Formats: sequence, C-alpha cells, structure tokens
Amino acid sequence: MSAVLIDGKAAAAELRAEVAAEVAALPRAPGLATLLVGDDPASQIYVRNKRRLCVEAGMRDLHRHVPGDVSQGELAGIIDELADDAEVTGILLQLPLPGQLDANALLARIPPAKDVDGLTERSAGRLALGTPGLVPCTPSGVMHLLDRAGVALEGAEAVVVGRSSLVGKPQAQLLLGRNATVTTCHSRTRDLVSVTRRADVLVAAAGVPRMIGPDAVKPGAVVIDVGMHRLESGLCGDVDTERVAEVASAITPVPGGVGPMTIAMLLRNTVLAARLAGEAAVPAVEGRVGAGR
Amino acid sequence: MSAVLIDGKAAAAELRAEVAAEVAALPRAPGLATLLVGDDPASQIYVRNKRRLCVEAGMRDLHRHVPGDVSQGELAGIIDELADDAEVTGILLQLPLPGQLDANALLARIPPAKDVDGLTERSAGRLALGTPGLVPCTPSGVMHLLDRAGVALEGAEAVVVGRSSLVGKPQAQLLLGRNATVTTCHSRTRDLVSVTRRADVLVAAAGVPRMIGPDAVKPGAVVIDVGMHRLESGLCGDVDTERVAEVASAITPVPGGVGPMTIAMLLRNTVLAARLAGEAAVPAVEGRVGAGR
Repeated sequence: MSAVLIDGKAAAAELRAEVAAEVAALPRAPGLATLLVGDDPASQIYVRNKRRLCVEAGMRDLHRHVPGDVSQGELAGIIDELADDAEVTGILLQLPLPGQLDANALLARIPPAKDVDGLTERSAGRLALGTPGLVPCTPSGVMHLLDRAGVALEGAEAVVVGRSSLVGKPQAQLLLGRNATVTTCHSRTRDLVSVTRRADVLVAAAGVPRMIGPDAVKPGAVVIDVGMHRLESGLCGDVDTERVAEVASAITPVPGGVGPMTIAMLLRNTVLAARLAGEAAVPAVEGRVGAGR
Repeated sequence: MSAVLIDGKAAAAELRAEVAAEVAALPRAPGLATLLVGDDPASQIYVRNKRRLCVEAGMRDLHRHVPGDVSQGELAGIIDELADDAEVTGILLQLPLPGQLDANALLARIPPAKDVDGLTERSAGRLALGTPGLVPCTPSGVMHLLDRAGVALEGAEAVVVGRSSLVGKPQAQLLLGRNATVTTCHSRTRDLVSVTRRADVLVAAAGVPRMIGPDAVKPGAVVIDVGMHRLESGLCGDVDTERVAEVASAITPVPGGVGPMTIAMLLRNTVLAARLAGEAAVPAVEGRVGAGR
C-alpha cells in the first residue's frame, strides 16, 4: 500500500474539540433539536449518536420523538414551533420519514438559519448562488478532510461520482467554489473509467460497493470514499480501498474516513447557526459558512 | 463551413407563437410586471423589448418604472405589493440596480411561483434539488435549442465554460438533469483546450470574445455560444464561429443564436407561472417546469 490514509476519525475528533471550545466561548450554549419520527432502528441509532456528541460538545440536546403515525399537519406544527423558538439554534429532521409524510414540504418549513443539515431548498439555493448559508454535512466534511490533508484544489481536475442532493450535487458546488474544474458522473455516464481517470481529486458517492477499482484511478490521485456498505465480508465503501491504495497518493478508509465527519460537521453547523443568529442584525457574513474556507 | 447553423431566431419565433396560443387558451391573460429602476440605457432597451414581446404574445404588460434614487425599503415595498397582487403572474426585476440597492435581498422577496427570471435563492434551490420550479431563461433557452436540433444528451459529455449564477451554473444543472456527464470550466481551469475538446456538447458562457477556437473543439461537437460582445468589427460571441464551424457538427451564430431565446423563455416562464398559479391547489406538478423536458 503506497497511499497515505486520510484519518477521518482523528479529523472528526479534532473538529469536535474545536467546536466544544467555540461553544464554551459563546454567551449561551446552542441548542440542537433532533426530530425523530417513528421507530426506524437505524434512525434511532443515528439520532442517538448525534445527541450524544451534541452533549459532549457542550450543546443543549433538545430532542423530540414523535409517533410514526403523526399527520403532516401535526409535524408541520412541531417544526414551526421549533422554528419560532429562540432556544432552538438548529433543527434536524431525521430522514427517511414514514410513507404518509411529504419530507420536502416539511424540510421547507425549517428556516435557513436553523437548517443545520443544509438540506432545504433555500440552503441549496444559497450554495448554488454562492451566498452564505449552511451546507450539507457530508460534502462539507469531505472538503474539511481535503483541506486538512493539504490537497490543492485550485485548478485541479475533480470528479464526483454520484449526483444526489445529499452528497454529489453539493459536493460539486463546493469543489467548484474552490476553483477546481469539476465533472459530475453518474449511472448514465458512458465509459466511467475514462472519466474518473482524469481526476486529481476523485470523490466516490455512487452507493455501489467497491465500484471504483485501481484501473479507474489516475496514479497519484486523492481518492475520497463516501460510500458505506455492510456486506457479509464486512464494511466497505464505493472504492476497492486496498487495491486503489496502490495507485492513489491519499485515500480515505471505510470505516474511519468520511463517516465520522458527518456528525462533526453537523455540530459545526450548529455553532455556525448560533453565530449567525447572534449576528442576525449584521448585514454581511464573512465568506461561506460551513464550506471549510 | 460544414456545421449546421442552429437558428435561434426561428426557434424563438416558433416558441413565441406557441406561447401566444397557450395564452389564448387560458381563462385570463397572464400579467408580466417588469420593474425598471433608474434610466440605464441598455436596461431601458431590454425592458422595452420584453414588454413589446409580452404584448405580442397576448399577455398583459404591467410595467413599473421607479426613479433611480429609490430606497431599499421603498423598492422592497413595491415588490411585496406585486407579490401579493393576484393580477401579477410574473415579476421581473431588471438588473443591474443602482449602487445603493442590495439586489439579492430584493430578489429574495419575489415568490418562487412568480420568479419568471428564475434568479432567486429558492428557484436556484429547486433547480439544484431537481424539484419543479422556474428556471433562468438563457440556460433553459439553450436546452430548448439543443432539443429542437435533436441533440442526444443522455450519456453525452457536456462541457460548460463559465460558472455564473445566471448561465453557467444553472446550465450545468440542466444538462445533468438530462443525464449528460457534465464538466464545468472557468478562468482557473488548467489547460482549458484539453477539457473543452472532450465535449460532445460545448456551451461557451465565459464572457470572453472568440475565446473558443477550432483547436478547442472536438470534431463533430455541437457548440452553443452564449457570449455576446460588441467589438469595433461588429458583434461576436465567445466562439470564433467561422473557424469553429469547420470542425463542429452544429453551432449557434451570434447574433441570431441563443440571444433571441432569452425573451422567448421569459414569456414561456410567465405562462408556466400562470399555470402554476392556477394549479396551486394541486399538490404535484408534472416534471420540471421550464427545463424543456
């Protein structure tokens, strides 16, 4: 193995410590409202981890658990209440929701200043237009890892495999904002290998186990693996890590790469939201919030 | 010259006739509120043309001319009034605004359902997330030209030169929505020629006169020129049209290519906004509005 391993676990721990220090310096601890609907076991674990790390960072845990048979109107009312509550700094609506609920319509009720997941229409618009706003946690976590590893992005060829609203699309916007030349590939891309082989920085977020092999990677490239799959043989990502590591100059492992960054960036977004709320009277905000610039 | 010329003038006339037929079939003619602030001569010409073609298409011209020394608060009040007015189908705030005004804050007051220019944060967010909304006129005009010329986009390599919020960024989103593999280039791209030469479909929106020469184009590519420059030698685009036409399979001229499409798409967006307003009670809207799909 020749590639440097990019240690997301260490980066996330470091970032959480930074967030905790920022929280300690704030006049009042930010409050994170995680909103869990129903009893999906995976969602329960995710929310539990978010709440635990929120408390560890010194923030207030304002969790709400709502029965799975809640109506659209009732849940909308709860979100509006959290939106109006000055004690609530950030709102996280845990997805997926039970089938009777329209997630997009509910997300749209979260004010952009409290949208710590960065998933609403207005946050996506701000990212697309390059105006300050809160950015989705996984792609901004990728940017943080790239920066921490000292990867030069200006003028680099970046290729993103995948175009989800959660990762691929915001990832492309963030890389473009850092002056990379950015290509987005997807399931309809012809000859994917020839496209990914152009990449100086390759972000795999396709959701297909080990789809990126060594033939798909330019020698010396930096490879970021957003995938996370539970196979019989264990956890793996979208990249065939062991073999690609022979070709790449740096690579994120799975687990311990991008994964731990997501909650760390959520905590960071919550602190940024607290700062934004504090500066609400100030017209201009410096730079892009949460983009790691 | 071997390339087919893509005739934007004919396409725009055809589209305006389609819009006029749709307007005639509506229970009430849509109303377009063009809002001109101050006396910028270019803006006056643009607004005059928009109003003229709006009337020709059978729509109501609800123009407002505001003195150039208007305050932010006064202009915000006028936009809010138009937003609330059921007679107003679409609102177009002509840019640029005089220096004392904050254009983004004013644009943000336009409701997405009346945002016929597609320039607000929420419209940009809808485009990024792939939910129905009104799309900026120039890039959607490009999509219309590509469709009318029968250009296959699925799996094609598309390269967009330029990353403005007005053209480059929404153009990339629209091409991605049509399953092209999309690369965005810009002033910091290293070795631009090698990137543009990959394109099956090349959209030049960089704002640099004749920057795309024949060496930058793959033989047989479709070349769309969004540029428009007034030089001493006459009008030209971002593409060296005459020489590139020897290499490309199809190309838009300047003038008479993308230019005429912009107002035609504005009129089309206004009709779509009228339909959206009529269907406001209906939860789902079919497909993407204005994306030419």
